[in-house]
Amino acid sequence: MSLNILGHNYIGGQRSGEGDLHLHSIDATSGAIFEIPFVTATEKEVAAAVHAAEKAYPAFRATTSEQRAAFLDAIADEIDTLGDDFLAAVSRETALPATPRLAGERGRTSGQMRLFAKVLRRGDFYGARIDTALPERKPMARPDIRQYKIGVGPVAVFGASNFPLAFSVAGGDTAAALAAGCPVVFKAHTGHLVTSEIVADAIERAIKKTGMPAGTFNMIYGDRVGAQLVKSAAIQAVGFTGSLRGGRALCDMAAARPQPIPVFAEMSSINPIILMSEALKVRGDAIAKDLAGSVTMGCGQLCTSPGLLLGVKSPELTAFIEKLSAAFGGAVPATMLNSGGLSHYNSGVARLTQLPGVKVIATGGSSYTQAVPHLFKAEASLLFSKEAPLEEEVFGPSTVIVELESREQLIDFAANMHGQLTATLQAEIGDLQGNQDLIALLEQKAGRLLLNGYPTGVEVCDAMVHGGPYPATSDARGTSVGTLAIERFLRPVCYQNYPDAMLPVPLKNANPLGITRLVDGELTRATLG
Amino acid sequence: MSLNILGHNYIGGQRSGEGDLHLHSIDATSGAIFEIPFVTATEKEVAAAVHAAEKAYPAFRATTSEQRAAFLDAIADEIDTLGDDFLAAVSRETALPATPRLAGERGRTSGQMRLFAKVLRRGDFYGARIDTALPERKPMARPDIRQYKIGVGPVAVFGASNFPLAFSVAGGDTAAALAAGCPVVFKAHTGHLVTSEIVADAIERAIKKTGMPAGTFNMIYGDRVGAQLVKSAAIQAVGFTGSLRGGRALCDMAAARPQPIPVFAEMSSINPIILMSEALKVRGDAIAKDLAGSVTMGCGQLCTSPGLLLGVKSPELTAFIEKLSAAFGGAVPATMLNSGGLSHYNSGVARLTQLPGVKVIATGGSSYTQAVPHLFKAEASLLFSKEAPLEEEVFGPSTVIVELESREQLIDFAANMHGQLTATLQAEIGDLQGNQDLIALLEQKAGRLLLNGYPTGVEVCDAMVHGGPYPATSDARGTSVGTLAIERFLRPVCYQNYPDAMLPVPLKNANPLGITRLVDGELTRATLG
Repeated sequence: MSLNILGHNYIGGQRSGEGDLHLHSIDATSGAIFEIPFVTATEKEVAAAVHAAEKAYPAFRATTSEQRAAFLDAIADEIDTLGDDFLAAVSRETALPATPRLAGERGRTSGQMRLFAKVLRRGDFYGARIDTALPERKPMARPDIRQYKIGVGPVAVFGASNFPLAFSVAGGDTAAALAAGCPVVFKAHTGHLVTSEIVADAIERAIKKTGMPAGTFNMIYGDRVGAQLVKSAAIQAVGFTGSLRGGRALCDMAAARPQPIPVFAEMSSINPIILMSEALKVRGDAIAKDLAGSVTMGCGQLCTSPGLLLGVKSPELTAFIEKLSAAFGGAVPATMLNSGGLSHYNSGVARLTQLPGVKVIATGGSSYTQAVPHLFKAEASLLFSKEAPLEEEVFGPSTVIVELESREQLIDFAANMHGQLTATLQAEIGDLQGNQDLIALLEQKAGRLLLNGYPTGVEVCDAMVHGGPYPATSDARGTSVGTLAIERFLRPVCYQNYPDAMLPVPLKNANPLGITRLVDGELTRATLG
Repeated sequence: MSLNILGHNYIGGQRSGEGDLHLHSIDATSGAIFEIPFVTATEKEVAAAVHAAEKAYPAFRATTSEQRAAFLDAIADEIDTLGDDFLAAVSRETALPATPRLAGERGRTSGQMRLFAKVLRRGDFYGARIDTALPERKPMARPDIRQYKIGVGPVAVFGASNFPLAFSVAGGDTAAALAAGCPVVFKAHTGHLVTSEIVADAIERAIKKTGMPAGTFNMIYGDRVGAQLVKSAAIQAVGFTGSLRGGRALCDMAAARPQPIPVFAEMSSINPIILMSEALKVRGDAIAKDLAGSVTMGCGQLCTSPGLLLGVKSPELTAFIEKLSAAFGGAVPATMLNSGGLSHYNSGVARLTQLPGVKVIATGGSSYTQAVPHLFKAEASLLFSKEAPLEEEVFGPSTVIVELESREQLIDFAANMHGQLTATLQAEIGDLQGNQDLIALLEQKAGRLLLNGYPTGVEVCDAMVHGGPYPATSDARGTSVGTLAIERFLRPVCYQNYPDAMLPVPLKNANPLGITRLVDGELTRATLG
């Protein structure tokens, strides 16, 4: 590989590799080890990275929204220039195909940065609110009060394994935090170290190009540096994508700090798909084919992979299960992101296989080194057992189909299921009539409701919610995809009785940013007297 | 007292008093005990109250924003009709004067309900966002995605002692939760039981009048029912106003649940006031008088009471301290909300009195049964000692003034002080020049920045922030006063590819509510094609 990899931590614009512990990049397909050592951050280096972020915060938060927008645009440009050798390196570490997958993800990552730049220029993230003075009010005058939102402070971000670009170093959490004016300390995922370094370099170039303070972005390597990072006093919020166990451990640490801080962890979801009879009648073939594609997409290594398929017993459902089995039979084994992932997946498959009431009804080939797609069929009673064995995520290309006895049983399950990132209906108009109660229940349980689509493929846009009740995430009030993600890292502050000259720019009378503000109860872009 | 008090818990529109443990209302001034027992909720009754809220949630959240607005207006009307005998009862339990204080607080409480009704009618709380479909987009079509916000589910609210109306049964947290469509289980404060019952009755009448589901509001009595309430699985968020110890305990419980939930606890703040030399020169007399009034207002039992006064050594400051001492000498002892409060206050005063480097420079009279106003002077070094003894809240009519050596020392303290609800500058234009860095630091440490005002007196409006970094609150991203408070109890959800007929009303093409929505990146009230 011709890429220039140093393997040192990124601290305040400098590189530092003082530790003795090394990590190595691994070829996900062959298992071969990349020779260059990645130096695990020492306790001192973790503290230094946090300190660098803390030191950068006053200057970084003082940048204008336009300056931060230009910075995000510059990151996007740098990412776009990462070429085929970069994609090859990412592919080598993750076994994800360079095209179209990683090329697409690169565009998604730069596009995400540019979308947050737009948010910064639009200015509604400021949430500007102005209540003008009412000096004549009785019995007491009302002072002038003006509110806007500022970044909470340095943010720790943990990258995900499954999106080495879009949910990693320059991913959604980093973009949202930087947009909010929060310096970032990023914990590189051990599954794509070379990738992380190349992207961190791109961010560093953008920092220099746009004159952002050193320490706006920092990155540390290591298996066990996360706990120290989350416990560091200067860190004010955490973004995480990964397992329920890992996410919950961070939440518990953050809650136990002298100053508790919020953790936005996106963790575990089985993304139920409800198959309705009219839809199966009209489009059963297409649904079977598309669903098998959605379950095996990216080797099933997606947070929104459909892990549970539900339908009420009917001749259409019986026919559909046969079609779906056939579609699964046509699927093929694929290499997972890393050997740990494969071993987890195989454990999950074994757990389901051994569960009374569950049987394997189709597999896509066989392999010892790759993940084999599995289609399970489970008895409906398992949906209602206390251990909820069908609601435990199996991260990989498998899914479970369940024939329910009745619509009542479906409603009963929907009312009691765990929190989800998504809930999908495959339904024709006729199916929807009389199922408003079901939709209302799904709304209480999921962050995103889909009709006649597949949850894999998460659009990055203003309206997206990639979140949901626990255990889908640790805080249902956030989203980790889409522009609302910035809200997680903002807090409101208000000024009372300050003269115009001393007010933050978004709150000045002249509305120099031309943003929409809530003035005396009305949304307006007007200037003030 | 002619008021009809039953002393039973409010569970799903019924009254229930099955327990053996009783609480009694106490006359705050005389210590006399009100004869009627208030029956502590049993474990079964706490569970029943939570269950009632859970049961009410689907119907309550399905109400339109207009229906909920009418409900809040009805509560406001009921509160306004509570007359002089009510105010006398509140005054008896709290020692707060019926007029103007409690009459004003009654108006503030009903006004708060009406303000949230306005928010519901305005509809911006929905945060409606629409990204329309782009069927021709390459390489992949974009589906139609629409986001809005819904209530998180049943909310537990803990009333504060110091605002028996505005921060209690029908107070800000209750108003915000009900506005969000979240049923409430309220834990009545033991310091104003009769008050709580009368206000709960008012809410119950409004529920019946506007046809809200039984269980929309529930209230339980008890000293130790809070832990069970917070640990109840159906509860999805907690609002609390009170002590740091109490608030932190709830946070820890909530974080340790199988499903962690957010706690919005407003806890502890010393509300520093920085006195600048020009201001002292021009208005020293008035500031001394007003500040003594602010510190002793409501017997200092306000979250925003100024507990720390800071100025850089100067002849003006020396003169000011004399004026302030004189003003404190004119203050008089006052009865606190309850004997526990007095005992805490006296402990706090004793702690400061015994602290090396602190001396009492003025007191307002003397008393064994009432709180005596205290003005302390402390050495600047105490601001920088690790234990931060001057940053520990003393809830009552006392404050500490500190003469700093230099502006640098002031900046140093501001950079390191704890999180605050408020930070105030007394400053003339000349004082402000060159102090932008100080203001930027205060913004990082507080929820509300005041200029030439006093933090006591928190306006209920759109722009208010009554929040701030820990330990002022447990989550700086929330406010417990003002309309932004509703955000704490909302979460986003999105619909992908749903037909117009099946979409929630705020997201329909025709924009039937006429609300402002973010459509394809633009804020607009327009309808869609």
